[in-house]
Amino acid sequence: MPSPTGDPFLLTPGPLTTAPETKQAMLHDWGSRDAGFIETNARVRTRILEIANATDSHVCVPVQGSGTFAVEATLGTLIPKQGKSLLLINGAYGHRMAKILDILGRAYETLETPEDTPPDPGAVDTILSENSAISHVIMVHCETTSGILNPVTEIAAVVAEHGRALIIDAMSAFGAIELDARKIPFEAAMASSNKCLEGVPGMGFSIINQKALEKCEGNAHSLSLDLYDQWRVMEKTNQWRFTPPTHVIAAFDKALDLYEAEGSLGGRGGRYLNNCRILIEGMRAMGFKTLLKDHLQAPIIVTFHMPADPEFDFQSFYNKLKDKDYVIYPGKLTVADSFRMGCIGQLHETEMKGALEAVRQTISEMGVTTGAPT
Amino acid sequence: MPSPTGDPFLLTPGPLTTAPETKQAMLHDWGSRDAGFIETNARVRTRILEIANATDSHVCVPVQGSGTFAVEATLGTLIPKQGKSLLLINGAYGHRMAKILDILGRAYETLETPEDTPPDPGAVDTILSENSAISHVIMVHCETTSGILNPVTEIAAVVAEHGRALIIDAMSAFGAIELDARKIPFEAAMASSNKCLEGVPGMGFSIINQKALEKCEGNAHSLSLDLYDQWRVMEKTNQWRFTPPTHVIAAFDKALDLYEAEGSLGGRGGRYLNNCRILIEGMRAMGFKTLLKDHLQAPIIVTFHMPADPEFDFQSFYNKLKDKDYVIYPGKLTVADSFRMGCIGQLHETEMKGALEAVRQTISEMGVTTGAPT
Repeated sequence: MPSPTGDPFLLTPGPLTTAPETKQAMLHDWGSRDAGFIETNARVRTRILEIANATDSHVCVPVQGSGTFAVEATLGTLIPKQGKSLLLINGAYGHRMAKILDILGRAYETLETPEDTPPDPGAVDTILSENSAISHVIMVHCETTSGILNPVTEIAAVVAEHGRALIIDAMSAFGAIELDARKIPFEAAMASSNKCLEGVPGMGFSIINQKALEKCEGNAHSLSLDLYDQWRVMEKTNQWRFTPPTHVIAAFDKALDLYEAEGSLGGRGGRYLNNCRILIEGMRAMGFKTLLKDHLQAPIIVTFHMPADPEFDFQSFYNKLKDKDYVIYPGKLTVADSFRMGCIGQLHETEMKGALEAVRQTISEMGVTTGAPT
Repeated sequence: MPSPTGDPFLLTPGPLTTAPETKQAMLHDWGSRDAGFIETNARVRTRILEIANATDSHVCVPVQGSGTFAVEATLGTLIPKQGKSLLLINGAYGHRMAKILDILGRAYETLETPEDTPPDPGAVDTILSENSAISHVIMVHCETTSGILNPVTEIAAVVAEHGRALIIDAMSAFGAIELDARKIPFEAAMASSNKCLEGVPGMGFSIINQKALEKCEGNAHSLSLDLYDQWRVMEKTNQWRFTPPTHVIAAFDKALDLYEAEGSLGGRGGRYLNNCRILIEGMRAMGFKTLLKDHLQAPIIVTFHMPADPEFDFQSFYNKLKDKDYVIYPGKLTVADSFRMGCIGQLHETEMKGALEAVRQTISEMGVTTGAPT
């Protein structure tokens, strides 16, 4: 059973299945310097701040491109050339930020834990106590490599206690898992149009503490990715410096309507939690084993160990599921052979049960008796 | 009379009025690592090379974001940290590249001419003769600040004679004005989905000589904007490194269908030339004066001097035209008060005549007797 637009359902970390109304919002053209578009853009920025309860403290600075563009732009804009960061790594997105800092020539230390292990707030406390030179701590909220939920609240408290700044890659969590600027002190959090807010891909954004951003003139390593410059121009004119992806932004505005109609954080996060529960219970009933213990699992994407059954072949499993209108995702773990199934996007109880039924049929067709790993 | 989608016509340098079919291509969702999307992406890249007659010599490397992202990515990837460039400037887009080179810390000299004056190939010849350290010459094909067509063919010949590399910002010309890699030697040319190829905004691309690109590992100042890395990964997998704007790319693929159906360069360029001729003749008949002499005018966007009539007020002119479903563009000249009207996008004879009629009605409503400047 395909989606209302005839497409397979995307059980991936994004691009996701979006609502028909969201896509239909792209059936128009807008002048990017015209009043109608300017209004849409201002509305989108305001609503993002509201989701983070950050209207009084932070500004929302959007940037063209994928989520990584927003991450790189934020790191390049906020971390001074002479600053030093502590980067918490437990997956590919942490490693990607290390690569960015390498290219930008910004000094950093890492605290790395295995992909199924969250960073320890106590360890962060020790490092910050011993390293007064560290100005910024950088972490990933939900590391989609594994699907793990990292302890943002606890780490934010430690970082604040030491008077350092926290930058959160909230890409795959924002809008579904609480990130309240009044409870969780952060200097910046980055996300994109295309994850839990269910817009289409093409823009990212950073929610940045205004007082911190005001000090960042000239920091950035790039013109396109300079969020200080982008912010100053946008504050003045509500226009983007360079041609914005107008259709993507119009779709995002519509997606935010749907987000609010669903009950915002509670509604959206609640649906994903239910999706995740259905998925894990159903897959476990077929013998599949999740990488993560339940208390570490974010309701975003679930990593399953590859089954040990010799009849199981991932490419064939993938293709047969796609033939049944469900697209899943390969694993990205370095430590174990795995695959992933997402819970986000326009997926509800019906689609999650449909996906489980497709898995059931598929392993039966393959002659696989159990999803259990070795 | 609005466009088929009920929107005003955009007589701007972009975002443009696009075809309904192009926008309708965005009514689907794609997994960015799934076979269907991979095929679309490969097809788009091949077709872009064909437009430049560059299939045997160059590769097409797309990048998320606006045209400026593609420009910055190309300069950062291709120009070695120790390289030196000669930058030809006669408008805002030339100046923008200077700003990019400043931020990137790449050395350059400039050859600047007034906004209504193309760079002189003889002057380029002299500078290159005297400066053996210059590795790259950078120029803008059509400078939309004024609408001027710069002499790419002549300058490319001079640059090639000196054995230097030419980088062309072909943003607003590509697809409508010939840029044939077999006739015009260039190392790279950058453009976007959203100009003469009439896709929606959200991605740029660079057409890069493969042999040159092969030497560029590690040059780039940015991870997101590293076209060497983007190319290597895309050659191997046909996938983008980071989430691509899937809907924008699907729309671009459809826009390229329409481009070919119109007769590619000849058909598209011919229509724009006709649009431009109708516009200029009609505006001159009302007394308006173009900035540029006809032989310097690219059929992309036309700059008109602001009328001297005391009854003329630009904001009111703009608003009244928009009420009549035609959106024009403010001027960007530093030397004279002006406004601009574009000839590109889904505009045909009917729309150009409609725009002229709207201008006629508008100046009459304003009590302006002639469009003549002082």
